[in-house]
Amino acid sequence: MVNTEELLQMLKEIAEERIPFNKVLGLTVHSLDEEHMQVHFNMRDELVGNFMRGNLHGGVISSVLDLVGGMNAWLGVMKQMKESNLDELVERFIKIGTIDLRVDYLRPGLGKYFTSSGNIMRTGNRVSVVRMELQNDQEQLIAVGTGTYIVG
Amino acid sequence: MVNTEELLQMLKEIAEERIPFNKVLGLTVHSLDEEHMQVHFNMRDELVGNFMRGNLHGGVISSVLDLVGGMNAWLGVMKQMKESNLDELVERFIKIGTIDLRVDYLRPGLGKYFTSSGNIMRTGNRVSVVRMELQNDQEQLIAVGTGTYIVG
Amino acid sequence: MVNTEELLQMLKEIAEERIPFNKVLGLTVHSLDEEHMQVHFNMRDELVGNFMRGNLHGGVISSVLDLVGGMNAWLGVMKQMKESNLDELVERFIKIGTIDLRVDYLRPGLGKYFTSSGNIMRTGNRVSVVRMELQNDQEQLIAVGTGTYIVG
Amino acid sequence: MVNTEELLQMLKEIAEERIPFNKVLGLTVHSLDEEHMQVHFNMRDELVGNFMRGNLHGGVISSVLDLVGGMNAWLGVMKQMKESNLDELVERFIKIGTIDLRVDYLRPGLGKYFTSSGNIMRTGNRVSVVRMELQNDQEQLIAVGTGTYIVG
Repeated sequence: MVNTEELLQMLKEIAEERIPFNKVLGLTVHSLDEEHMQVHFNMRDELVGNFMRGNLHGGVISSVLDLVGGMNAWLGVMKQMKESNLDELVERFIKIGTIDLRVDYLRPGLGKYFTSSGNIMRTGNRVSVVRMELQNDQEQLIAVGTGTYIVG
Repeated sequence: MVNTEELLQMLKEIAEERIPFNKVLGLTVHSLDEEHMQVHFNMRDELVGNFMRGNLHGGVISSVLDLVGGMNAWLGVMKQMKESNLDELVERFIKIGTIDLRVDYLRPGLGKYFTSSGNIMRTGNRVSVVRMELQNDQEQLIAVGTGTYIVG
Repeated sequence: MVNTEELLQMLKEIAEERIPFNKVLGLTVHSLDEEHMQVHFNMRDELVGNFMRGNLHGGVISSVLDLVGGMNAWLGVMKQMKESNLDELVERFIKIGTIDLRVDYLRPGLGKYFTSSGNIMRTGNRVSVVRMELQNDQEQLIAVGTGTYIVG
Repeated sequence: MVNTEELLQMLKEIAEERIPFNKVLGLTVHSLDEEHMQVHFNMRDELVGNFMRGNLHGGVISSVLDLVGGMNAWLGVMKQMKESNLDELVERFIKIGTIDLRVDYLRPGLGKYFTSSGNIMRTGNRVSVVRMELQNDQEQLIAVGTGTYIVG
């Protein structure tokens, strides 16, 4: 059996350091445990979509929601694999991929920083479904989304 | 009435130069006329999502599809506003926004370059619906999407 | 100003009695107040999709989620129109329509009866977004959905 | 190997006769071959959603699109299983299910009859993606949709 703490630390490192486009977005992973996680990023000039209003580009929002959905899908799988060894876990991890993503843009993405988290709707043997949301520094809901992930 | 050629040139300039996050993605707008347009971008290291496979980040794909959907929504509106002056057009243009976006990830985003285009399903007074797709340099379908845009 | 109780009673009557396809589904509206509502229906032979497993047809599920989304969209609008008279309310009510709907099928729709409710994500001047869910008599989550509604 | 004609005839029979809710909708399957199929149904009083305008209930539209998506997903799988025997085909057939469905409502569903067909975007080992559309008797596009199906 694998040390869960170490595994979560690896997950955080992959999300933050090993996915090049996440570095462009400047994402950091907060409060990561077996049940929850939160992604945080700061507003920066290059993340702007509308040069007149200065709000987040829709693509930044969908990128973040997709990452949060995928990480939650993985947390759901991990929970079911508590008795597995590292090889089995890695083999399962690399199979995870987004099948589809829906994003609802609720308000202009204005703020100094943004946070995103998710809730697992179902972890299946093959498919997992996660609902995500993105808030700004005023805790206003900027966007919600639903992602379907292949997990086996 | 407005010179359509000039208007399309402005649209291209806004998409390529005035949206900061589009510059991060390295997007260029090709074959833009009143009916069609195509977005083109090259694979680059910072657009990678999976460091082991080297494929496009899902967020890059959704960003591009959203832009293509929004530009097509605007082309549809422009067609209905042929008799309008520039002020009316600008007033309408700045109202356009994405309501929601669905992206279906069909194949890993592998290739030297990618192209994306869209088809308008309906241009309404308030809402337009566009279907988009993304292909790689082998003309393989990498992703499809559907976007709903507020247009009035 | 209009009596809210009467208005809610009218809404219930329209949903249950005046929408022919809802009668086919056998829907009833429960616990309807200004903030919440719940739709209830019993399993019946003609609602079956898979004759071998005896579960709900996917179309029944999406029909119910769409109704619940639309009714919640209307509750959100009503809340913003507290000072309006009946004519203004009716004029607004008949404008409501579904722009798009996403349904995630989580588990086979097995049970003696089912309930569905929703949460408003945002009530805008033109567009509202609602998240819905459907549970069976064991309170298992059968499906979730997200609907976008034109409201003005 | 199985006689394709017989298999398609079985598929038509299942869709029309063995799925109770499809009988409520009054669906018939037309022009079914290995590549294409079309579903047809007539407007009837009990399919109405808006009693004032007399248009199709949104749930009828999503029900039909889901069926068309699922049947297309199956046609895609059948094409890849040309060398298989009937047992293998049946085993695969009963695994098919809708993961999620997106429906875009473009115009009020008015007409004497309606037709629906689909295009397979990708047939994978586990997941297939289909785009569907619904037209009225004037060949106006009433709705489009995208469905994701588990196929293995």
